[in-house]
Amino acid sequence: MADVSKYDYDLLVIGAGSGGVRAARMAAATGASVAIAEDRYLGGTCVNVGCVPKKLYSYAAHFHDSFDDAAGFGWQLPGPANFEWATLRDNKISEIKRLNGIYQRMLESAGVTLFNARARLVDAHTVTLSGEHGDTSVTAQKILLATGGWPWVPTFPGSEYALDSNQIFDLDTFPKRFLVLGGGYIAVEFSSIFNGLGSETHLVYRGELFLKGFDQEVREFTRTEMERKGVNLHFNTNIERIEATDNAYKVHLTSGDMLEVDVVLAATGRKANIGDLGLDHLGLALDESGKVPVNERFETDVPSVLALGDLTAGPELTPVALAEAMQVVDYHFSDSVPKPLDYATIPTAVFCHPNIGTVGLSEEDAREKFTNIRVYSTDFRAMKHTLSGSQERTLMKLVVDDATDVVVGAHMVGDDAGELIQGIAIAVRAGLTKQDFDRTVGIHPTGAEEFVTMRTLTRT
Amino acid sequence: MADVSKYDYDLLVIGAGSGGVRAARMAAATGASVAIAEDRYLGGTCVNVGCVPKKLYSYAAHFHDSFDDAAGFGWQLPGPANFEWATLRDNKISEIKRLNGIYQRMLESAGVTLFNARARLVDAHTVTLSGEHGDTSVTAQKILLATGGWPWVPTFPGSEYALDSNQIFDLDTFPKRFLVLGGGYIAVEFSSIFNGLGSETHLVYRGELFLKGFDQEVREFTRTEMERKGVNLHFNTNIERIEATDNAYKVHLTSGDMLEVDVVLAATGRKANIGDLGLDHLGLALDESGKVPVNERFETDVPSVLALGDLTAGPELTPVALAEAMQVVDYHFSDSVPKPLDYATIPTAVFCHPNIGTVGLSEEDAREKFTNIRVYSTDFRAMKHTLSGSQERTLMKLVVDDATDVVVGAHMVGDDAGELIQGIAIAVRAGLTKQDFDRTVGIHPTGAEEFVTMRTLTRT
Repeated sequence: MADVSKYDYDLLVIGAGSGGVRAARMAAATGASVAIAEDRYLGGTCVNVGCVPKKLYSYAAHFHDSFDDAAGFGWQLPGPANFEWATLRDNKISEIKRLNGIYQRMLESAGVTLFNARARLVDAHTVTLSGEHGDTSVTAQKILLATGGWPWVPTFPGSEYALDSNQIFDLDTFPKRFLVLGGGYIAVEFSSIFNGLGSETHLVYRGELFLKGFDQEVREFTRTEMERKGVNLHFNTNIERIEATDNAYKVHLTSGDMLEVDVVLAATGRKANIGDLGLDHLGLALDESGKVPVNERFETDVPSVLALGDLTAGPELTPVALAEAMQVVDYHFSDSVPKPLDYATIPTAVFCHPNIGTVGLSEEDAREKFTNIRVYSTDFRAMKHTLSGSQERTLMKLVVDDATDVVVGAHMVGDDAGELIQGIAIAVRAGLTKQDFDRTVGIHPTGAEEFVTMRTLTRT
Repeated sequence: MADVSKYDYDLLVIGAGSGGVRAARMAAATGASVAIAEDRYLGGTCVNVGCVPKKLYSYAAHFHDSFDDAAGFGWQLPGPANFEWATLRDNKISEIKRLNGIYQRMLESAGVTLFNARARLVDAHTVTLSGEHGDTSVTAQKILLATGGWPWVPTFPGSEYALDSNQIFDLDTFPKRFLVLGGGYIAVEFSSIFNGLGSETHLVYRGELFLKGFDQEVREFTRTEMERKGVNLHFNTNIERIEATDNAYKVHLTSGDMLEVDVVLAATGRKANIGDLGLDHLGLALDESGKVPVNERFETDVPSVLALGDLTAGPELTPVALAEAMQVVDYHFSDSVPKPLDYATIPTAVFCHPNIGTVGLSEEDAREKFTNIRVYSTDFRAMKHTLSGSQERTLMKLVVDDATDVVVGAHMVGDDAGELIQGIAIAVRAGLTKQDFDRTVGIHPTGAEEFVTMRTLTRT
């Protein structure tokens, strides 16, 4: 890196989201000269229209339950709590601005040059940057594509009335009636959020049940709990058309039903955000799902052009992009030994209400992979709800490969499931056994202690 | 066990707390004939005057923060919430009664004979039971002492006005001003509870800082946070005397200060509950701390008399008594291989506000035990508090043996610390390394992800 390079930069990163910023900072820390181009907002989807604002809204929506729960503990409110959407939204906006500023300062203090511009690939080492001062051309030894994903909405009559997940955060007016189309993370999370904040909420999904790919028992349990909280679930159903009236949208469903709502969110998937990135100039083909193929060194078919994160195959998760960024730097800019991710044991949380936390294999996948499995599953009313009067239940579940006793999957639906599963994920990734779980002493009284006290086999 | 015994029972358990009930049920499940004697309440300290009601009260006290936090999320309460002590107390009483009933049914369905009577040892196989129908004598091949602990209060002028932790749960009137003497679990928990419920709260402790034996950074961090929440901490201070007036207690401190309060709780330790158990009839000596010595098979010096739980040395924790009960049964009533506890990695939580969760060694103990250690420590404002406006901070900390990279201690102060540490405890007990933690992908956004993303060494 100390050589005088024939390029402007050792590394040019396109996209200042979680993965891009991490790669830029870490590469700069090795002594490389690094620039990053971003034409939108610093921090990418996660900070601006993803994990962070979603989690803040989820917190807001949980207060509804807290107010209800409080009475059994002796707390009397003088009247019902009133929810002001503008307060939440504007406080969220301020917090995101603060985070944008933190990202900017992190890049600056790392010595990374920040171009507020849109980047297009010209050749294997050259990028055109289009910003407010016109176009400039920049060269780099390596170019890292980190432009992430972008919401995708299908076309149907009236689909132009549907908002996507980039647009839902900053609504002018709080929707009294809210409908989300979709069955993935975003759909279940936003239906829980608006339901908790007080909207009449509908989730419409063409499949039999949401959260495809998750453990079946988790999916069914979540359905029961979300319905108990008042979300109206419409499965095996799609939107036929959306009709705009003066003060509402009439959503006509394939079931023949019509729902009148104030906001329709299409949470119908995300695509790689390749837009006019210029991949075609380099002859870079996409895979069948429209993502950029890379090898284990995160190199595309053009070796000087790298890619990571939501743009590439693999789970679309911030910590995955961060881990990939570390590897990109290890492979290309430092002498550190890269630490490949074990993609089979990436834990994740869904911030629907109640939350889902999960790591490793579903019961169904484990059954396919192993000759014999053991399943330990328990559902119970959390201690808090003995006094709150809430009928909410919590599910915890371990899936074990019988031959080795290794815990190959751990699942939870309940309060703070993501917080609880994080520690469990260390154990699952390391291949610990059910006996290791059993020999750990419980912390009493917690919900989490169930994970180390499930002695009774539920089924094989 | 199938032989006709010369004794009335194969096992007689004295004390129907967590350990006693578990041992009785599990022994009965092996086919042994089992009786249990209890003269007070089923479920022991944990269910009646310990973990369970304490946790319920802790939940109640947390709502205070929820109401304050809600405003930043857009929730407006029409006025301050009003706390009714009688509602909380009476709902708690109903819940405990329900649990007492569950214990009774569990014992009945396990085929355990329940004597509502006080038991006294007569000889190595004989017990006198004193109940409402007078005295009877019962013999057993093995007698298990599981009478737990009992609060201990020092004698000083006016100490008769102080309540102990058995008496604090069912106060007639909510104390506007509350003082607790002591520096252990119970003292910090009850000061957080009454502070959260709205009392002016004082904690008086003769030592320099509460929670002796815990990680020093955890102790100091907890002090800062509890003070921030409004608990008045008086260290290096003791009570000189308590003076009763018509409508208050004047508590005169060794510092010369006087505090006027409505309730004084002496949380000054617990002793083995041996009362008039008749240990002297058998020549059973106690250890220097007044506990019953046992060998690794939980046998006292009289081999037919066993003991476990708070009556014996070791941490006074329900899950420890439960684990010991399983071992008692494995050693004496079944063919299962007993699984001795690793007492060095017993996780625990303190339900002060914020909560503490901890497993393994403190930084100080690790420094003594290992040549070189690495400490990774982070404190931060939880995401929720970016909008709530609360200044509360969270501490997370890993202590690593440098030579082996094994994580020998994990500590947290913050929301649901006990819930988060449970999974971490599986990893620590199993001897996983810092690299195992680092290679686990974080769940974003959670607080717990900090435990797998602490890359920067804090100190060695």
